[in-house]
Amino acid sequence: MHNPFFNNNGPFKLSEILNKLNLESNENNKNLKVNDIKDLQNSKLNEITFLHSKKYKVDANKTNASFCITTENLKNELPNKCLPIIVDNVLVATSIITSQFYPDSINDDFDNTVVNIIDTEFNNVVNFGKNVLIGQNVSIGSNCLIGHNTIIEKNVSIGENCIIGSNTIIRNCLIKDNVKVLDNCVIGKHGFGFFPAQNKNLRYPHIGVVIIEDNCEIGCGSTIDRGSMSNTTIGKNTYLDNQIHIAHNVKIGENSIIAGQVGIAGSSIIGNNVKIGGQAGISGHLKIGNNVEIAGGSGVIKDVPDNSKVMGYPAKNIREFLKDNR
Amino acid sequence: MHNPFFNNNGPFKLSEILNKLNLESNENNKNLKVNDIKDLQNSKLNEITFLHSKKYKVDANKTNASFCITTENLKNELPNKCLPIIVDNVLVATSIITSQFYPDSINDDFDNTVVNIIDTEFNNVVNFGKNVLIGQNVSIGSNCLIGHNTIIEKNVSIGENCIIGSNTIIRNCLIKDNVKVLDNCVIGKHGFGFFPAQNKNLRYPHIGVVIIEDNCEIGCGSTIDRGSMSNTTIGKNTYLDNQIHIAHNVKIGENSIIAGQVGIAGSSIIGNNVKIGGQAGISGHLKIGNNVEIAGGSGVIKDVPDNSKVMGYPAKNIREFLKDNR
Amino acid sequence: MHNPFFNNNGPFKLSEILNKLNLESNENNKNLKVNDIKDLQNSKLNEITFLHSKKYKVDANKTNASFCITTENLKNELPNKCLPIIVDNVLVATSIITSQFYPDSINDDFDNTVVNIIDTEFNNVVNFGKNVLIGQNVSIGSNCLIGHNTIIEKNVSIGENCIIGSNTIIRNCLIKDNVKVLDNCVIGKHGFGFFPAQNKNLRYPHIGVVIIEDNCEIGCGSTIDRGSMSNTTIGKNTYLDNQIHIAHNVKIGENSIIAGQVGIAGSSIIGNNVKIGGQAGISGHLKIGNNVEIAGGSGVIKDVPDNSKVMGYPAKNIREFLKDNR
Repeated sequence: MHNPFFNNNGPFKLSEILNKLNLESNENNKNLKVNDIKDLQNSKLNEITFLHSKKYKVDANKTNASFCITTENLKNELPNKCLPIIVDNVLVATSIITSQFYPDSINDDFDNTVVNIIDTEFNNVVNFGKNVLIGQNVSIGSNCLIGHNTIIEKNVSIGENCIIGSNTIIRNCLIKDNVKVLDNCVIGKHGFGFFPAQNKNLRYPHIGVVIIEDNCEIGCGSTIDRGSMSNTTIGKNTYLDNQIHIAHNVKIGENSIIAGQVGIAGSSIIGNNVKIGGQAGISGHLKIGNNVEIAGGSGVIKDVPDNSKVMGYPAKNIREFLKDNR
Repeated sequence: MHNPFFNNNGPFKLSEILNKLNLESNENNKNLKVNDIKDLQNSKLNEITFLHSKKYKVDANKTNASFCITTENLKNELPNKCLPIIVDNVLVATSIITSQFYPDSINDDFDNTVVNIIDTEFNNVVNFGKNVLIGQNVSIGSNCLIGHNTIIEKNVSIGENCIIGSNTIIRNCLIKDNVKVLDNCVIGKHGFGFFPAQNKNLRYPHIGVVIIEDNCEIGCGSTIDRGSMSNTTIGKNTYLDNQIHIAHNVKIGENSIIAGQVGIAGSSIIGNNVKIGGQAGISGHLKIGNNVEIAGGSGVIKDVPDNSKVMGYPAKNIREFLKDNR
Repeated sequence: MHNPFFNNNGPFKLSEILNKLNLESNENNKNLKVNDIKDLQNSKLNEITFLHSKKYKVDANKTNASFCITTENLKNELPNKCLPIIVDNVLVATSIITSQFYPDSINDDFDNTVVNIIDTEFNNVVNFGKNVLIGQNVSIGSNCLIGHNTIIEKNVSIGENCIIGSNTIIRNCLIKDNVKVLDNCVIGKHGFGFFPAQNKNLRYPHIGVVIIEDNCEIGCGSTIDRGSMSNTTIGKNTYLDNQIHIAHNVKIGENSIIAGQVGIAGSSIIGNNVKIGGQAGISGHLKIGNNVEIAGGSGVIKDVPDNSKVMGYPAKNIREFLKDNR
């Protein structure tokens, strides 16, 4: 998990962290320094992580974190060098501490740092349309085009030979070389992630970004949300048609082709050389293998192994589906 | 049915109304005053209403309207004090008379009253982006943000602590407090309502508005149409993901969660604490109860009672669906 | 196939064409003139066409083209007067030669010829909003409205009494009279057509346009792609609701009604008086007859004859579907 864009407000003393969770610190540990918050695999010495399910006990056992938000039941999965911080609801507590480190990652208010591209260093470098706005911490490679009324908000890196359409909004996004993003897209907003609560849902922070690799194309009117604790990624030479929705934390492989109006729910992982027909939907937290074909209109609700073709709702082997629906 | 925004061009003499329908008035009634047009439940003395189906005979019997557009077959359902106006096609005639009272409610031409927010009273009150346009009859509460290129067209009331994204268009809409509307939305346009006719369909007026209650969030690229003879409403603390379409007259309850690319057809009513998965579709004129869960990709074509979980197309009990599709 | 907009860079000598395909010309034919590239039916003397499947052998036999890109296996389907040009992959070769004649038809870079409408001949003729941009080769009939931030890019003809919404982008499009295009649409971009290849897909040119006939209405947030070797057409008095996607080469008849979030894949042909419910999807290369009704949420994967009603995925006779799903 890289975090190129969001500003880390840490380090904090452990007492400051425990205080946010209404927990008490003791004289022994209150001044310990906590540098960052990451997942189990990526966190290091003097960093804090979280463990909310037995599913992750292998990762928990190997974590290098010095602190871990977890429950009474799960604390024994952690190595001795990692101090458990016991809470009732691990995800809510993690959300609170992530917000403490990265306060800018919760809201997606419009970027008020933008200025007209004419008044930036890009005026003589980029070929641009009317009313293009550019925020802080933006880089743009050589030989790029940016269409009319497009807003490149803060925290965007665009490679070489990229073409961005008109009326498009991008933030918190790494775009590599030779990428085309067509008109009316919104890329890099926070995902649809929150803790439901009566009267006032609680948004959790999204500290991930969107990464779009070389040679990709993103169709008109598409939305790609950035990740929460990991990134949303589109692999090399993958093409998305119009009106596609890619939710937070989704990872799509290389050389894949995704037709119009497809939706991929949060945290699903799609392989290389995958073809997805129009209007198909893929539920969250699934793994779709390499060389998979998903027929248009299908609804995929479980993992799909490599080299398979599926169809229907729930999607199953395409031959079986067609036989059953003769 | 409140009508805060559209200008009532009445009152009209009854003769003027009958004339629009190619009917003749007589000396006794031609000068009677008709103040407004409303549905059976809400209309009052000296107002006109309409009755086009036996389904509404209970409401018809209790209406306080002085006049009612109806058919020869249905006129006996009305109280004596209500004068029936007999036509061949009740809905077409109602459409004509509604247009007579509210001529502004048929078309959704761009609002040519807008000016740059810099030239309005909101310049020092609202935190806004570049190129924001504001129409007539707009109010905005304290502590609001409005993103770049957004157009708040005429007849919009925005409460306190609201965040409106960029490239969004809003008209004929009541937005309460702490509401977030993200980028690229279109809210408050007329619905997809018209009388089909060879060569030239006939649009009917939409005199309803869109009401978005406290603490709601509306995702990027969503469209919410205003109502025709009633309002389209989104209840408190209901969250909509990206690319959602809410048709005219739909009413959604409180604390509901609606995932990406869902579509809800005209006049359906959704309860409180409802969860709808991505890409699900709900047909028109249905009633979805409280605490209902609708699986992603489902197609709901009949009412769903409280506390049920449904899946499939047509959507049925989720256990039954999963058993049938093992 | 008319081609009102794209500039034909021809004529070319046959040797120049063969050279692009890495083929050799001989002394006899190298200076022959090739004027244009068209499909089998429309091409004429001194023009080049292509034949890639036995399905088109009737058209091949009758073609008036002087040259035809084809394979060793298919060349005997051509008349003697037509010189076969033998290649391995007909569609890729056709794409290369089409690009040679129409280099502007491959990319959809933002139109950098646009200027503010205030600085055009339309300033006193059209009723327009703020920040409207107009490209080269645009005509607009009398009594038209164009909303805020809308971009009429190059190669657009708009008839009389048309209403174009706000935030909409149009290019390569013939719009007839009394047409309404609502907000946030993108019309006339190239379709999702390319030859998949590892690492770098190959886009093929789209030399077709979008034609929208009299009295149509296009809902908010819709995308209509232009055709590749033919046009995308919407017939008279056909209404499209919000968030609809119409792919390249699709042809829709007259008096049809298409509800929200419908998607129609490439090259399908829809008849007159067709009703399509919300979220329905129609696969590519299908023929949907006249007076057909397709229930909302259906997935149509084969042709539908005139006067039928279908439902389900795969869509079948509606009575059968409802019986099977009781």
